[in-house]
Amino acid sequence: MTDVIDKLNWRYATKKFDPSKKIAADKLERILEAIRLTPTSSGLQPFEVFVVENPELRAKIREVGWNQGQITDASHLLVFAAWDNITPERVNMMFDLTNEVRGFVNEGWEAYRKQLLGIVAARGDEANYQAAARQAYIALGSALIAAAFEGVDATPMEGFDPAKVDEILSLKERNLRSVVMLPLGYRADDGDWLVNLKKVRRPKDKLVTVLA
Amino acid sequence: MTDVIDKLNWRYATKKFDPSKKIAADKLERILEAIRLTPTSSGLQPFEVFVVENPELRAKIREVGWNQGQITDASHLLVFAAWDNITPERVNMMFDLTNEVRGFVNEGWEAYRKQLLGIVAARGDEANYQAAARQAYIALGSALIAAAFEGVDATPMEGFDPAKVDEILSLKERNLRSVVMLPLGYRADDGDWLVNLKKVRRPKDKLVTVLA
Repeated sequence: MTDVIDKLNWRYATKKFDPSKKIAADKLERILEAIRLTPTSSGLQPFEVFVVENPELRAKIREVGWNQGQITDASHLLVFAAWDNITPERVNMMFDLTNEVRGFVNEGWEAYRKQLLGIVAARGDEANYQAAARQAYIALGSALIAAAFEGVDATPMEGFDPAKVDEILSLKERNLRSVVMLPLGYRADDGDWLVNLKKVRRPKDKLVTVLA
Repeated sequence: MTDVIDKLNWRYATKKFDPSKKIAADKLERILEAIRLTPTSSGLQPFEVFVVENPELRAKIREVGWNQGQITDASHLLVFAAWDNITPERVNMMFDLTNEVRGFVNEGWEAYRKQLLGIVAARGDEANYQAAARQAYIALGSALIAAAFEGVDATPMEGFDPAKVDEILSLKERNLRSVVMLPLGYRADDGDWLVNLKKVRRPKDKLVTVLA
């Protein structure tokens, strides 16, 4: 099956969205569900996702987002925000949830909880944040493919001032830090300089090394 | 279409691979192609992927990978290695490739090259490495979904000593740092403690906030 490759070839970093075209609710739900199901290190899911519909918030984010039109023109704006630290409370929340969902306490899993609590305590806040941020990018990968399967255009964006976006969305109070944004919607019929240009990727022999 | 969700539900972090089952070459190629096509910030693709088949290398990596059996038992072991820094040479390599593939020099793109060279110079080595590492995780997300579409089991793994893996694979000499590994193969018929346990994810309302 080559569906995934087809979809990755179809998608591109949309530069101009049609502001009149909105994503159907069921399509958005499936993209969010793909994010939710994304695997993460130790199952922590150390991030949250904000679906910003509010036009005033979008306008403010655009001001600190290099004035990129996709921020306000797309149907929806997703903001991925990583945990600012991996605290014992957060680790325990996920391990407790695991016990609850599975309906039993597993000895090996409890030993791993202790080990992980030791690891994150030793690693320090900033390294924990960096580790959390990476996990959000796995979900970004899922979201990009899920959107393409829905025929929804998407533009991964790092070009914004994270501290300012944190302020606009009150993320600091939630112990979160914005890491990447993803406007979702439909490409405009014209005015997108990128849509007809060739996708550029390094050839396989510059990216992949086989150690046989 | 809910293919992506089905596949994400099907997959799990395989704990025991069947060492006798090998991935067909065309399936592996498609997983690697999904990685290659993954979008990255500014199109830099700031990572490389190592397909480790060599049994001696796999045994050495297992020694510094918490002795996890998947490292040696899986059909193939992918190691994602991020650029240790985003140097002007690397930025120019990708921008030059873009001009070559598209067959022309675009003024806006050249202005962006200069801007990006300024950004990475100001940001410093460590922050550049962290930014590069995040991009590798987008590709990890693609690889996980692509593998599931191929019916191939996969286990994202951060439980290893990156500096030691860098030594084993001579990554420092290539200015790369290992960030995450992905054994690929087929689950064993029995002996996997996780395969029959429920997948655990936070409910949507704990992960997603809509700002209407």
